[in-house]
Amino acid sequence: MAPVLEPYFKQVDSMADSFIDRLRKAVAIPSISADAAHRPAVVKMADFLENELTTLGAHVERRYLGEQHPGLDLPPVLLGRYGDDPKKRSILVYGHYDVQPALKEDGWATDPFTLHVDEKDRMFGRGSTDDKGPVLGWINAIEAHKKAGIEFPVNLLMCFEGMEESGSEGLDNLIKQEAQVFFKDVDAVCISDNYWLGAEKPCLTYGLRGVSYFGIEVSGPGQDLHSGVYGGTVTEPMTDLINVMSTLVNNKGRILIPGIYDQVAPVTPEEEALYADIAFTMQDLYDGIGSKTAIFDDTKSTLMARWRNPSLSLHGVEGAFSAEGAKTVIPAKVIGKFSIRTVPDMDPEKVEKLVQQHVEWEFAKLNSNNTFKFHPLHAGKWWVSSPKHWNFTAAAKAVEQVWGVKPDMTREGGSIPVTLTFEQQTGKNVLLLPMGSSTDAAHSINEKLDKKNYIQGTKMLGAYLHFVAEEPITE
Amino acid sequence: MAPVLEPYFKQVDSMADSFIDRLRKAVAIPSISADAAHRPAVVKMADFLENELTTLGAHVERRYLGEQHPGLDLPPVLLGRYGDDPKKRSILVYGHYDVQPALKEDGWATDPFTLHVDEKDRMFGRGSTDDKGPVLGWINAIEAHKKAGIEFPVNLLMCFEGMEESGSEGLDNLIKQEAQVFFKDVDAVCISDNYWLGAEKPCLTYGLRGVSYFGIEVSGPGQDLHSGVYGGTVTEPMTDLINVMSTLVNNKGRILIPGIYDQVAPVTPEEEALYADIAFTMQDLYDGIGSKTAIFDDTKSTLMARWRNPSLSLHGVEGAFSAEGAKTVIPAKVIGKFSIRTVPDMDPEKVEKLVQQHVEWEFAKLNSNNTFKFHPLHAGKWWVSSPKHWNFTAAAKAVEQVWGVKPDMTREGGSIPVTLTFEQQTGKNVLLLPMGSSTDAAHSINEKLDKKNYIQGTKMLGAYLHFVAEEPITE
Ligand SMILES: [Zn+2]
Ligand SMILES: [Zn+2]
Ligand SMILES: [Zn+2]
Ligand SMILES: [Zn+2]
Repeated sequence: MAPVLEPYFKQVDSMADSFIDRLRKAVAIPSISADAAHRPAVVKMADFLENELTTLGAHVERRYLGEQHPGLDLPPVLLGRYGDDPKKRSILVYGHYDVQPALKEDGWATDPFTLHVDEKDRMFGRGSTDDKGPVLGWINAIEAHKKAGIEFPVNLLMCFEGMEESGSEGLDNLIKQEAQVFFKDVDAVCISDNYWLGAEKPCLTYGLRGVSYFGIEVSGPGQDLHSGVYGGTVTEPMTDLINVMSTLVNNKGRILIPGIYDQVAPVTPEEEALYADIAFTMQDLYDGIGSKTAIFDDTKSTLMARWRNPSLSLHGVEGAFSAEGAKTVIPAKVIGKFSIRTVPDMDPEKVEKLVQQHVEWEFAKLNSNNTFKFHPLHAGKWWVSSPKHWNFTAAAKAVEQVWGVKPDMTREGGSIPVTLTFEQQTGKNVLLLPMGSSTDAAHSINEKLDKKNYIQGTKMLGAYLHFVAEEPITE
Repeated sequence: MAPVLEPYFKQVDSMADSFIDRLRKAVAIPSISADAAHRPAVVKMADFLENELTTLGAHVERRYLGEQHPGLDLPPVLLGRYGDDPKKRSILVYGHYDVQPALKEDGWATDPFTLHVDEKDRMFGRGSTDDKGPVLGWINAIEAHKKAGIEFPVNLLMCFEGMEESGSEGLDNLIKQEAQVFFKDVDAVCISDNYWLGAEKPCLTYGLRGVSYFGIEVSGPGQDLHSGVYGGTVTEPMTDLINVMSTLVNNKGRILIPGIYDQVAPVTPEEEALYADIAFTMQDLYDGIGSKTAIFDDTKSTLMARWRNPSLSLHGVEGAFSAEGAKTVIPAKVIGKFSIRTVPDMDPEKVEKLVQQHVEWEFAKLNSNNTFKFHPLHAGKWWVSSPKHWNFTAAAKAVEQVWGVKPDMTREGGSIPVTLTFEQQTGKNVLLLPMGSSTDAAHSINEKLDKKNYIQGTKMLGAYLHFVAEEPITE
């Protein structure tokens, strides 16, 4: 072990209870960004973090992003700096202090805003793993260094936002503005806001799929009609919509839109070799989906489908009858929703054009007198980094020090848009360094963070800062 | 004019204001059956009718149908009798005293529960045309006879229910029980609870389509999934469902389920000749649907499609994303809803079997590892009567006396299930004799009944009773 890490790790262990107490205080603040009524609690959570940081000697600036809508301020982004030594590297870390909604009635076993530690040392509470635990991990690391009298190895820049669960409104713009100001000395970026692939083995994440979301609208009648009176006499928008939706994808996951696969990067032998070693079993997938209705029965195909191949999901229909029971309605205007998860080297603009051409062509084939509209709803690009970058090498060493195992190098199927923004705006490497595991149920009831992941995770974040401070810059 | 009708019509004209006042009082009672909180108002409406009837010397029995659910009584059915002369024919009339929900905020120009008579003598108010106006029409007819000292031509049996807008729970059973008791002397049945085909010309209605409603369910994952994490690796229920739904009907109204058309009665030359004279224009259809997105461009094909051919409508999907915006969900269990409007000589059980065979076959072709379930949700049979029956002949004479024109003999695309129940349980002819017009906006905002339709309609109902009392029994 690097000599300096031993006292740091000891210090973290000795402070475990106070770190858990810090998490307890944070979980108790219901900083739900989706609900305007909870906005004061989101701001209170910003106050809490600001106070923790300034107490430890960090410099914190609150940045206001304006109003979400008239009369409702967006929560502040906290820009923090701990250390200002030009001889040290500057590492920018990102996290979010807002949380998903949670109500006891949703099925939580205990109050979601009261941290509950069970006999297995699982710490239940909304935000425990997403993303208060990781954010506090950085603060814990600062405090442990201070208490142990160990010099902090880097200048730590922090960007903590309060709207991540609600679309990070205004953040991209702020990052752009600050790229050459607050973030100008940044050497590398680290985001701790995702999860291990499984329950046991740590990972570093170097890739994310993008997402392009579409609506296709078919309309005709001036208002919803009664199917008794008008069935058989009016061209029904639902019939057209379902026909077009049925041409997008098959149930083996194959996208049927011409040209989509032309843009997908071929698999290299090097990539191919990666999948064998990943700690992932089909049972992990079955546990995740709650069934055995998988498309593939091997882990390699499954991981490739999740990480590096595009997929298309039909999400639903807006404007049609969607409740329980039986309603004899002919919906007047229906909007089918679907999205494509995109991968290297797909160009979102090209994807949009291919989708538009396809759906318009399929609608034209129907020879309908209804009206068709294509709505590209949003598009976020995929992101892929090099797992051999020194930022990743440093993190891998930290993981091995703390967990005694080399991390899996993983990608993810979902998107974390801020990743790409940081990479593009700072021009620096971005690393995703998860603290929690796949069993943490972020966004679900009974969200938790294992005590082990929190305390070892605090060690890991600190160790990462030591390694990244000294890692030879190789690319 | 039959001599007795002249003084009756004069009496009705002279009492017009008090009849409108009766409608005003009835509209003021918000007897919304769909809303448990309004149940006392539904009962109050029953009290109102009972009082009106008994004041005029009718005998009224309240029949309780039990609880809708624990703690909520169904509204009473009022069984009334006016006259008990074994030498007279007994005519059973049906109507309902409950109404659709209505809120000013829905877009009503005036308060829905305050009768508003505008400068064109349109009487706006919830229930004005559906179905309080027609129900009061019978009461008005009794009163006018009484006041004018004209002998009432028939024994009038009445069945007025308070749950029609909410599925007529318990009514079928009551009709069955009373068929040989309260209704045992009935010679013919008349229902006034529908509308003219257009705005100007009266009609008698002798046919209704049936409806068979289905749900098809596809399920797989144990819970809704995130499309980023699982898209491409799990067999998505929506993909299977949309595929099966796309095989049911085309946008020209053609049902694609094999065997469905084999059961449809062929068109006879006699029927074919009927369509030419019906007062119906394509503009009437366009006005009804609020667009020109019709399947056919001629009235004959349109009326045949509405009245005598089956149709299939896709209503929507339960369990999928149906709100505004973009949600990246893979729904775990989705239920597609559709219904088939059925016509002579389709057998609902045969229809159900054909539908089940088809959807199960189409799902099997998908070779999916998801689970498929077929749910027949409800089925009501079509009804067709003979427009040459003496009950209709009598009504046609009444229309001609009052409106100066022979009524169109029409069918309807929707279903009024109680029609078939009365026919089957009493074994007598059932006539649909509308008071209001197609422009009345039943079930919509700004529901109205024209003063002319209400006052002339009261004359028509009374005249019908005179003609039906003496019409030669020819079939
Ligand atoms: Zn998060
Ligand atoms: Zn989250
Ligand atoms: Zn009605
Ligand atoms: Zn109605």
